[in-house]
Amino acid sequence: MSDTAFEDDLYRKGSARADTDPEFVAELRQAISDLDADLIRQLLAPLHAADIADVLEQLSAGQQGILAELTPDIFSGDVLAEMDPGTREVVMDYLHPSHLAAAIAELDSDDATEVVEELNAVRRAAVLAEISDINREAVESSLAFDDETAGRLMQREFVAAPDFWTIGHAIDHMRESADDLPDKFHDLFVVDTGFRPVGEIPVCRLLSAQRDVHLTDIMEPPRILVKPETDQEEVAYLFQKYHLVSAPVVDSAGRLTGMLTVEDMVDVIQDENKEDMLALAGVNEADLADTVLRSVRSRAPWLLVNLFTAILASGVIALFEGALERIVALAVLMPIVASMGGNAGTQSLAVAVRAIAERDLTAANSMRVIWRELATGTINGVIFAALISTVTLLWFQDWEIAAVIGIAMIVNLSLAGLSGILIPLGLVRAGADPAVASSVFVTTVTDVVGFLAFLGLATIVLL
Amino acid sequence: MSDTAFEDDLYRKGSARADTDPEFVAELRQAISDLDADLIRQLLAPLHAADIADVLEQLSAGQQGILAELTPDIFSGDVLAEMDPGTREVVMDYLHPSHLAAAIAELDSDDATEVVEELNAVRRAAVLAEISDINREAVESSLAFDDETAGRLMQREFVAAPDFWTIGHAIDHMRESADDLPDKFHDLFVVDTGFRPVGEIPVCRLLSAQRDVHLTDIMEPPRILVKPETDQEEVAYLFQKYHLVSAPVVDSAGRLTGMLTVEDMVDVIQDENKEDMLALAGVNEADLADTVLRSVRSRAPWLLVNLFTAILASGVIALFEGALERIVALAVLMPIVASMGGNAGTQSLAVAVRAIAERDLTAANSMRVIWRELATGTINGVIFAALISTVTLLWFQDWEIAAVIGIAMIVNLSLAGLSGILIPLGLVRAGADPAVASSVFVTTVTDVVGFLAFLGLATIVLL
Repeated sequence: MSDTAFEDDLYRKGSARADTDPEFVAELRQAISDLDADLIRQLLAPLHAADIADVLEQLSAGQQGILAELTPDIFSGDVLAEMDPGTREVVMDYLHPSHLAAAIAELDSDDATEVVEELNAVRRAAVLAEISDINREAVESSLAFDDETAGRLMQREFVAAPDFWTIGHAIDHMRESADDLPDKFHDLFVVDTGFRPVGEIPVCRLLSAQRDVHLTDIMEPPRILVKPETDQEEVAYLFQKYHLVSAPVVDSAGRLTGMLTVEDMVDVIQDENKEDMLALAGVNEADLADTVLRSVRSRAPWLLVNLFTAILASGVIALFEGALERIVALAVLMPIVASMGGNAGTQSLAVAVRAIAERDLTAANSMRVIWRELATGTINGVIFAALISTVTLLWFQDWEIAAVIGIAMIVNLSLAGLSGILIPLGLVRAGADPAVASSVFVTTVTDVVGFLAFLGLATIVLL
Repeated sequence: MSDTAFEDDLYRKGSARADTDPEFVAELRQAISDLDADLIRQLLAPLHAADIADVLEQLSAGQQGILAELTPDIFSGDVLAEMDPGTREVVMDYLHPSHLAAAIAELDSDDATEVVEELNAVRRAAVLAEISDINREAVESSLAFDDETAGRLMQREFVAAPDFWTIGHAIDHMRESADDLPDKFHDLFVVDTGFRPVGEIPVCRLLSAQRDVHLTDIMEPPRILVKPETDQEEVAYLFQKYHLVSAPVVDSAGRLTGMLTVEDMVDVIQDENKEDMLALAGVNEADLADTVLRSVRSRAPWLLVNLFTAILASGVIALFEGALERIVALAVLMPIVASMGGNAGTQSLAVAVRAIAERDLTAANSMRVIWRELATGTINGVIFAALISTVTLLWFQDWEIAAVIGIAMIVNLSLAGLSGILIPLGLVRAGADPAVASSVFVTTVTDVVGFLAFLGLATIVLL
């Protein structure tokens, strides 16, 4: 039934979908405040785990808690794994450790780890005590790796075959051990006697080849071998570049210890993109479920930095109090130069940060791109200098002010283009994330240069 | 050999990789200017198609052209498919139609379409005339769909089996027709007698099941059925949400006509993220290979809009010329209020645009999020009002100006939070892309309100 509903979705675009349908959510809210467990189950049971998670995220923390107490059976391992971390944290507080242990046991080790890591130490111990030794060990060793590394993301369940087997051997073995196989896998890893991966075969290739063919005859050497310490962003980049669907993770001795899949990498790509975009806008992290207090905490630090740079820019303006007192038009016009510089700098910056993230901006082509940004800034400077000088002339009937603002515009837009590329490149060279902090640096440059060029020139020319 | 090189990469992080190694690129550049075809082949042949494409993108258009004339054999179908559109356009101008036809014939129909669409009408006709009828038909019917739709992205090669077959039937059939199978596939689609998809089976499940099991016994109903007209962003969202690796595309009669794979969706996700991030920064599109002229053209339009809004803000300032003439401190301080508002607004905006892209911000929870943004803005307003008032008091020794700037800060940061969420939501409701133009609207609001609140209050209180 649920499947038919989703089919229809893509046909009747714009029609109600469970997770975004206010009426559905309202009905569920009513059922929760009526404590009507049967109706809740009736509403949620037909949905896919991902949809249940999405609907739950629309509820308040109080409603989520009631739901967890009233109908814990809704919170299967899959549903827990699909929820965003904030919601999961709330819900898991209300679920019994034995329920959580059973839910986690359903999951592959990577998803199990993701769920367990949200628990505080006491509850984590209680839950882990109730799951099997093998599962516990897998989760514990994943948790030993840093967040955002391949080791944390990998699953321990994979399919490997020795390099002397034929396809027939491999298929017979899989049929016999069907219960131990991971839920889904896309490649068979071929290993040598030291359990080191020497090849991989897409499962579709296994199906189309003859039974008596040796695995070594159709395998390809692994495109990448991932170390558990490797940063997830690096791995996601390689998955994208080489169109991988899975990749082996090996320990320091080169032995196969886990597998990464494209499904996980899709989430990593989204997360890393989100991080970059928020970082550029000066937000540390953001979750729609965040409270006001959390939002304030994630945004105030960059506003504080901006306050300092804004005061710095004001200090520059204060240097020219004499000019401003005599010619009030300068005060009226000065924000234009700074604002245009800020925008042009942000444009260069976004292009550069994006190119760095996609590994397109490298040492081999950075000089060419730096020149292009400078040239683009200068040409735009000339264009907008002509426009603003004309406007100024018409407005204030003063060709000297018009000339001054035009020259300041060219200077500021050239420097905006240059700082928009040099600042992120400098951050990379310093080993920092180019998306974080670069906006603030760029707008500081464009504000300071904008005010300095305009008011400084005005002082020289007009006074 | 190339594979060992890539293995080493992930072990010796930071070591040279062909596509980002300036020395390698320099050596290739030298070989190109020496017209040394053998050395060029020796350098490039061991590389993966994706790496060759990345290296080529580091060269100037002139060098790319020489390479295409000198060693056309380097430009296999895979290499062409991996290149970015700008580079591909340059290179293909130098390749003979018969070479292009042979290269395209190697590719699955989705990649072939991507390559062909870069050709102008005359050359496209010349190339299509040289490829087989089946391939031509596939490419032509893909091109008939709009850019950025499922129809354009889908491949015509997929594997389907009738719903009365057993697993044994399906496997035997695949072995017999191994040559006609797509390069890679992750799901077997089960179709009814009308060729409508009724189920799908991950290929790993086929391997582990017994031969005499019926397909209908282990298939799952298709999670989604995609129409060719569906926007690629919508499809990518569903792939991510349901962790899909492939999905069937059906025509208006519900018949299976193509397949989308997760490898393509990874690229779509990256592209859509890039679009959003650049749009927020006011860049229409960007490619590292863009010329200065193209960069100017993609950035000038939003700078022009910004010029108008900056002049509007100046117009607001001009209303208070009298106050500015008498109290020059106002001119010094006024950019602080506007700048803080701009930053706070951009923060709200980035969070909102991101949440809309991830379908987390919906009609069911938008009221809660609007309140949160208003509250966050107001609380930050109070915090930074206290700070800036203190700074102003110390600087100008004037408690009235200190009070005025504090109140203006609270007003502007509250409104910044509100406009950061209401403007993108309004754009969505109007059917527009919330990332495009919203930055400009938000900073216009924060500039105008910032200057108006500060200078207006100052006029009332101080004069």
